[in-house]
Amino acid sequence: MPDRALDLDDELRSRTALLGSASDAATRVFTTILTRSPISRIDVAKLTGLSQAAVTKAVAPLVAVGLLNDSLGPTLTGLPGRPVSPVALVPDAVVTLGVKVNDDELIGVATDLTTRVIASERLPLASRAPAEVIDAIAELCARLAERLGDLGPRLAAVGVAVSGDVDSETGVVRDSAIMGWRNVELGPVLAERLGRRVVVENDVRALTIGEHWFGVGLGTRSFAIVTIGRGIGSGLHLNGEVVEGAYGVAGEIGHLPLTSPDKVCACGRRGCVEAVASTSAIAAAVSAAHGRPVTIGEAVELRRAGDAAAVEVFDEAGRVIGAAIASLVNLVGPELVVIGGEGVADFDLIEEPLRRSYAEHVFASADRCRIAVRPHTFEDWARGAAATAVRSLVV
Amino acid sequence: MPDRALDLDDELRSRTALLGSASDAATRVFTTILTRSPISRIDVAKLTGLSQAAVTKAVAPLVAVGLLNDSLGPTLTGLPGRPVSPVALVPDAVVTLGVKVNDDELIGVATDLTTRVIASERLPLASRAPAEVIDAIAELCARLAERLGDLGPRLAAVGVAVSGDVDSETGVVRDSAIMGWRNVELGPVLAERLGRRVVVENDVRALTIGEHWFGVGLGTRSFAIVTIGRGIGSGLHLNGEVVEGAYGVAGEIGHLPLTSPDKVCACGRRGCVEAVASTSAIAAAVSAAHGRPVTIGEAVELRRAGDAAAVEVFDEAGRVIGAAIASLVNLVGPELVVIGGEGVADFDLIEEPLRRSYAEHVFASADRCRIAVRPHTFEDWARGAAATAVRSLVV
Ligand SMILES: [Zn+2]
Ligand SMILES: [Zn+2]
Repeated sequence: MPDRALDLDDELRSRTALLGSASDAATRVFTTILTRSPISRIDVAKLTGLSQAAVTKAVAPLVAVGLLNDSLGPTLTGLPGRPVSPVALVPDAVVTLGVKVNDDELIGVATDLTTRVIASERLPLASRAPAEVIDAIAELCARLAERLGDLGPRLAAVGVAVSGDVDSETGVVRDSAIMGWRNVELGPVLAERLGRRVVVENDVRALTIGEHWFGVGLGTRSFAIVTIGRGIGSGLHLNGEVVEGAYGVAGEIGHLPLTSPDKVCACGRRGCVEAVASTSAIAAAVSAAHGRPVTIGEAVELRRAGDAAAVEVFDEAGRVIGAAIASLVNLVGPELVVIGGEGVADFDLIEEPLRRSYAEHVFASADRCRIAVRPHTFEDWARGAAATAVRSLVV
Repeated sequence: MPDRALDLDDELRSRTALLGSASDAATRVFTTILTRSPISRIDVAKLTGLSQAAVTKAVAPLVAVGLLNDSLGPTLTGLPGRPVSPVALVPDAVVTLGVKVNDDELIGVATDLTTRVIASERLPLASRAPAEVIDAIAELCARLAERLGDLGPRLAAVGVAVSGDVDSETGVVRDSAIMGWRNVELGPVLAERLGRRVVVENDVRALTIGEHWFGVGLGTRSFAIVTIGRGIGSGLHLNGEVVEGAYGVAGEIGHLPLTSPDKVCACGRRGCVEAVASTSAIAAAVSAAHGRPVTIGEAVELRRAGDAAAVEVFDEAGRVIGAAIASLVNLVGPELVVIGGEGVADFDLIEEPLRRSYAEHVFASADRCRIAVRPHTFEDWARGAAATAVRSLVV
C-alpha cells in the first residue's frame, strides 16, 4: 500500500457500500453468517429472530456482490436428505489490517473477514513520538499490503489498537500512559496517509471484540477479558455488545483502588491494582527489597528460586488481581472471565493467591463464573485490531 | 384479590396474550410507545429503526385489544397543520402490583402500565420467616386489589423486590442476608396463591428497571444506580438492557473489597464496602468509639454536632463509597450515576469525602460521568417492582 490513496476497485467499493448501508436486519443476518458460516437460512432466521423471507431478502444482495456464497449445495452440511440451503461467507471478499501498538514495537497482521491471518509483520519502534509512530504504522501497513498479492485491491480498512483512553468515534488517543500520548489524532492522520478507513480502539477492547466475534466469547451471553502484564486491563462484553463506556473509558480494572494508598501508580493515582501488580511494579518492589535494580525477568527467576522477598511481591500481585477480578464479577456477573496478556506466561507464580483472593471476595452465586487462562500472543492483539476494522464495515 | 385465582376476564387475557406472543418488532414498537406516549408513528419508526409500514402493522392489533389508542386526532400534539398520527398508550389497560420487601415492613403499590401509582399500602412484618412473609404479601396484594375498584379485572401481574441474590428466571430468592433467607421459592408459591403472574427481582435491579423505563434513565444510553443505607447496592443499565448477571448476581458494589481486611462484613467477607459504609456499620463504629450502643439516628446527631469520632466514621464511609463508585465508573463507564436509597436523607454528611475520593480514583475521561443524587422513597422501590411486572408482560 503506497503512502497515498489508491483507487479502490469497483468490486470492493460495491461490497463496502452494501455493508455500510445495510438495514438493521441485513446487518444482523450478515454478522450471524460472518461468525457461524456455513449456516442454513433456517438457522440464521432462528438466531436473528427474523422470518426466513427476511433472511432470504437480506442474503440476496450480499451474494450478488460476492460477500456470501449460496451455491455450495446441501452436501456440505454432511446431512444429505435434509432440505437445507447453507449460506457461506466468502472470507477473503474483503481484507483488513490490524496493528497493535506497543511502546517498543508494532505488531501487524493482514486478515480475512474472519480475522484469519494472511500475513504478519513486526517493526521495532525507535521512538514513541506520535509522528514517528505514525510513519512506522504506515511503513508496516505498506509491507503487509505488499504481501497480500492478488488480494491487495480488497483491502478495505485498518484497525489500530493502543493502550489507554481512546475515543473510537473520532480516532483520537486521548491519553496513553504507556505511549506518553495526550490527544493524538491517530485515526484521522492515518486515514489520510493510507487512503483507507482507519479505526482506532483501546487495545483490550479490540481484543474483546475479536474474542466476541471469532474467539472464546462466541456463543457466550457475557464475558470479560482481563489482561495482565505491563498494564492490567479488561474488556467486557454484556447484553450483546462490547462495553465502550459513555465517554470512551471502560474496563480500567488496573486502576481500581484495591491496594494501599501508599502505593503510587504510574497513572499518578494511589492504591491502583497496577501499582502492585503490573510487571514494572513487581520489578520495582523486588528491586526495593534487594536494594538494587532487578528486571522483571530476574524477578521471575528469584521467585522461581524461592527468594522470600520475591515470593511476597508475587503473592501480593496475585491477591490484588484476584480481588480485582472478584470486583468485576460482583459488579457485572459475566458468564466467563478469560485471563490473558503477556503476563500469563508466568501465571503459575500468582495463580494460587489469585484464586484464593478471588474466592474470598466473589459474592454468592457469582462464583459460578468460569475463570479461564489463555495466552494471547501480540499477533492475537493485532487480530483484535483487525476485528475492529471488520466490525467498522458492518455496524 | 382473593387468595386463589380469579378468572381473568377475556379483555385482559387478549391483551396479555398479544403482548406475550408479539414479534421482536412489535415488542420494540410497544415499549417505545409505552415509554414515550403519545408519539407519532414516524417517531416510533425512527426510534426503532423499523419502516413506517412495519410500525403501522404492529400498532393495529395493539389498538384492537385496547392497549393503544390511535384516534386522538392531530391536535393533541399542539402542532396543528403537521400531518402527524399520534399513537397513545391506554395506561390503565393493564394494572400491576409492586411490592418491596424490607426486613420489618412490606411496601406495596398498585400501578398502571407507566407505574403511575393508583394505590399504595404498607404492612409491618412481625417475622422474616418465609411462610409468614408470603402470607403478608398475599394480604397486602389483597388490600391493594380491593382499592383498584373497576380496574380490578385488569390486574395482570405482581412484581416483588427483595434484597440479595435473586434468580428472576425461577422466582427463587437464593440468598438474602437482610431477610435471612436461603433458596426461598417465593415466586412459584406466590403465583399459586395469587393466581397471577409473579416476578421476583433483586430490589436494586427492580429500581433500575423502573428508572430505565419511566425515570431518570429514560433516554440515556447507560446509567447506574447506587443505593446507600442499610445495604449498599447498584444496578447497571448498559447496551440497552439492565445487567442481570449470568448467574443472577450483578451490581454487588457493597461487597467490593475496598476497605481494610480487619473490617468484617455482615456477609462474612472481609474488607467489603458495607463493612464500613452501611448504616449498621456506621452505628457500630460510632458505638465502639463511644463504648456504648449508639443507634444510626443518634450517630447522625453526633455527626451533626461535630463529635470527632462520628466525623471520622462518616468520613470513612464517604471515602469508601466514593472509591466504590469510581471503581464502577472505571469498569463500565456509564453516562450517569444516580445515588439513591434511604441513606440519601443524610447525604450531606458524607458528600464531601465521597466526591473527593471519587475524583481521586476515577480514571481519565470517565470523570465526565454525571453524579446525581435522588431520594427514592420505599414507594419508588415498590414502583420498580411494578415495572418488573410490566416488563414481564412485554419482553
Ligand atoms: Zn492507576
Ligand atoms: Zn460483604
